[in-house]
Amino acid sequence: MPKVVDHDQRRVELVEATWRIIARHGIEGATMRDIAAEAGFANGALKPYFPSKDDLLAFAFSHVFSQTGRRMTDATVGRSGLSALRAYCLEILPLDDIRVSEARIVIPFWQKALTDPAKAELHAAAMLKWRDTMCEHLREAGAAGELGTATPHEDLAGLLMNFVLGTQITAVLSPIENSADRLVAQLDACLGLIADGS
Amino acid sequence: MPKVVDHDQRRVELVEATWRIIARHGIEGATMRDIAAEAGFANGALKPYFPSKDDLLAFAFSHVFSQTGRRMTDATVGRSGLSALRAYCLEILPLDDIRVSEARIVIPFWQKALTDPAKAELHAAAMLKWRDTMCEHLREAGAAGELGTATPHEDLAGLLMNFVLGTQITAVLSPIENSADRLVAQLDACLGLIADGS
Repeated sequence: MPKVVDHDQRRVELVEATWRIIARHGIEGATMRDIAAEAGFANGALKPYFPSKDDLLAFAFSHVFSQTGRRMTDATVGRSGLSALRAYCLEILPLDDIRVSEARIVIPFWQKALTDPAKAELHAAAMLKWRDTMCEHLREAGAAGELGTATPHEDLAGLLMNFVLGTQITAVLSPIENSADRLVAQLDACLGLIADGS
Repeated sequence: MPKVVDHDQRRVELVEATWRIIARHGIEGATMRDIAAEAGFANGALKPYFPSKDDLLAFAFSHVFSQTGRRMTDATVGRSGLSALRAYCLEILPLDDIRVSEARIVIPFWQKALTDPAKAELHAAAMLKWRDTMCEHLREAGAAGELGTATPHEDLAGLLMNFVLGTQITAVLSPIENSADRLVAQLDACLGLIADGS
């Protein structure tokens, strides 16, 4: 009987191995051989899943985006307005080890996207979705009388988007001033100002 | 008579050539040979200035930071409080071609800093200086009665820092939603909320 292999499961194992190797050696230092070894694969066994390192990276990046997206959707269930907006943003902030690891993957991804149109498109689509969801929660907040400002929702969402993206950098590269506590305080400061200027 | 060479000037020419090559080919695709050709140098002529690509990149990055720093200091001359804070932040926002190019250099720099302690230290020092200056202008604003919020200055400065760093990504990778007009509107929304919650 042939061995039954769960290919989707193996792909996810490879992505997780990829993260660990990138976190350890950087994206340039991550070789297919290292990733195979980390995932417990024989060297040639990666090829059927991912013919090139670039294919593997593209898959790893979309996995981070969809994982974050799933967490964000779960966190907002049963909420609306500013409460939903806060829960949504909290899932993007790099507040724990998993999310700091994600930030360590997203930074090299941005760098790749600068010269790779397919990766740039993947990023732009994910960012538009986040932004649209933030605008939607701002509209709910406005309808519920929760907003203390007449600033257009698009600019408030833009401010929040740029803030949460900036935290991906500072949580990794300026961690003292951007500990989990401080990032939450910064988010709450922003949402507090949007709510009632206090 | 030996040819007189202005070595500092040549270093800056090399840095500018480096920027153009990185913007065109990405940091991985930028070779010392391309950079030499772009700057009008013979291939071996770079070595006395920068023994390795890494030395050249480190110098190029500190040049971006000091150039931005100089612009920020110039922009705040004769200002204090929220007016100085706005002028300072405006110089970081990627509002024109030069500053969008700088963002294209800073993104690969972050990626390098993830696994290179010397680059991480250079970044952390520059970020602390920006942050301290923002805190100073917030203190001036507080003393002048310009602040409409009791949020600690450190958290407001952290919010602004993360916002301006996030714009380095979005101005390059989500340029439609983060055009110069929109970025200024987002900054003004944030400063308006800090001033009086309007």
